[in-house]
Amino acid sequence: DDIRNYAREVVLKEIEKHAADGLGMVDYALVSGGARVVKHSEPYGGKAGGSASWLLQRSRVSAEAERMIKPSFGEPGQCFALKGGSGFVEIRLRTAIIPEAVTLEHVAKNVAYDRSSAPKHCRVSGWLQTDPEIVTEKMFLLTEFTYDLQKSNAQTYKVDSSASNLVDTIRLDFTSNHGSASHTCIYRLRVHGREPSPVPALETQS
Amino acid sequence: DDIRNYAREVVLKEIEKHAADGLGMVDYALVSGGARVVKHSEPYGGKAGGSASWLLQRSRVSAEAERMIKPSFGEPGQCFALKGGSGFVEIRLRTAIIPEAVTLEHVAKNVAYDRSSAPKHCRVSGWLQTDPEIVTEKMFLLTEFTYDLQKSNAQTYKVDSSASNLVDTIRLDFTSNHGSASHTCIYRLRVHGREPSPVPALETQS
Amino acid sequence: DDIRNYAREVVLKEIEKHAADGLGMVDYALVSGGARVVKHSEPYGGKAGGSASWLLQRSRVSAEAERMIKPSFGEPGQCFALKGGSGFVEIRLRTAIIPEAVTLEHVAKNVAYDRSSAPKHCRVSGWLQTDPEIVTEKMFLLTEFTYDLQKSNAQTYKVDSSASNLVDTIRLDFTSNHGSASHTCIYRLRVHGREPSPVPALETQS
Ligand SMILES: [K+]
Ligand SMILES: [K+]
Ligand SMILES: [K+]
Repeated sequence: DDIRNYAREVVLKEIEKHAADGLGMVDYALVSGGARVVKHSEPYGGKAGGSASWLLQRSRVSAEAERMIKPSFGEPGQCFALKGGSGFVEIRLRTAIIPEAVTLEHVAKNVAYDRSSAPKHCRVSGWLQTDPEIVTEKMFLLTEFTYDLQKSNAQTYKVDSSASNLVDTIRLDFTSNHGSASHTCIYRLRVHGREPSPVPALETQS
Repeated sequence: DDIRNYAREVVLKEIEKHAADGLGMVDYALVSGGARVVKHSEPYGGKAGGSASWLLQRSRVSAEAERMIKPSFGEPGQCFALKGGSGFVEIRLRTAIIPEAVTLEHVAKNVAYDRSSAPKHCRVSGWLQTDPEIVTEKMFLLTEFTYDLQKSNAQTYKVDSSASNLVDTIRLDFTSNHGSASHTCIYRLRVHGREPSPVPALETQS
Repeated sequence: DDIRNYAREVVLKEIEKHAADGLGMVDYALVSGGARVVKHSEPYGGKAGGSASWLLQRSRVSAEAERMIKPSFGEPGQCFALKGGSGFVEIRLRTAIIPEAVTLEHVAKNVAYDRSSAPKHCRVSGWLQTDPEIVTEKMFLLTEFTYDLQKSNAQTYKVDSSASNLVDTIRLDFTSNHGSASHTCIYRLRVHGREPSPVPALETQS
């Protein structure tokens, strides 16, 4: 009976975590939470044509960019595809946080058509850019990592704890992928952390 | 081996329930089943502007109202936000039923940015309004409850069994929330029950 | 302790499979993977009206057809409804494969309003139609089966192993359903198999 209760308890706890966005961790880079992609390298394919049309576009954010800041629910193809084996994406977070970890997710092995488009060597940086008028950008390196195809498809990397700076924008640079010559797919990037304790908003009194 | 089989059995049963809309209970207030929001108090925020534009709107149903009658899949933000700490929503069900329970769901604790916008004291009523031309409305109190932030995020409340009236429309009134001064978010309201046994449709013979 | 570890292991493995599209099998008939519905019998209901408008439509593919090649996530109503108790659907796969199995899924019993619209006797055929200009169609029978309402809602049927032909298009014919006189709902059809080993593309050199 103890065993039965234990089995049941483990199951319910794991399903609760699964139901809570898979990891049960708050994600400040989620589109339904107010985050958005603000900049990225050249996207791959798409109906609008090739490089020339991309260079001429006024709004430099692809409609498909949003896919990388929302859940994929196990579906292959629910990703943002960028041209080539290296590139970048910048995301404005929901609010300014002290970042503690980032999670990079690719499609699960057992439903994927091909995983050569997964990012490999990655670097995530962050900075505070609340007011775009004022050039106060000071970029911090948050973490560098290698996405491993042998591990779980959602991989969480801690931010160096010595850095506890407030950031509201982050940038993912990938410098290689797992073999595709044509493109790299980003299924989802999450940013975890804590909001600073509220302080009197002095600036609004000036 | 018995233990192994038992563990496996528990797991599969719980995952089946999870996969079946989380609770494995039929929901007559689901948009994909034909239900719809027909009336509500003033919504919060939104692109269309503030109170004035709301008062001038001809169709008094917000495009975001539908969010509260479909699944949230663990995503914060997938809710219908109403202005202030009290308000109401009326839902036309898929079909007339004898209601047996209602479920109120908020976002899970471990992925939420802030849960002060969760409804607290609630009352659900129901009535039959199949033909909007005929004023046959007689409202029944189905249940009163307090949504508890310490419990599971989807909380089911039984309908008083002495009341077994047929209803096709229900109304949720919330009179307080968990602390937010500005708004209250409803992630999902489900209505469970049974359809009456089919009877000859006499009215069509007249 | 061994037992605890075992219980945990079973749970995590089953949740991983659940998170991987429920079955953990690659699906070549998935819309997000590039598949599409190319032809079908008369759809049921819909805003555009009845049979006459259907016969006059130029593009003979309903906007709702896509629902049967994407996940339903446990929601009743997320299906493609066809008129009557028999009919068919043709799907162009993501790419040419050697088919090994097909999965037919209906809504789960414990959240369904009514399951009389589930398909019953079914036949799946396949052929290669890469170039629509060249009439090279040679249809192969892949499998015949009866969808069973008493079993799991996603039922997988093996393709006869003697047939290992390459196909890029499949056709589902249903000749009966579970009782509905008016319509048959297809929640999802998946096609599993393997891609042929890459060979030099000789045809492009001609
Ligand atoms: K995604
Ligand atoms: K929702
Ligand atoms: K579906």
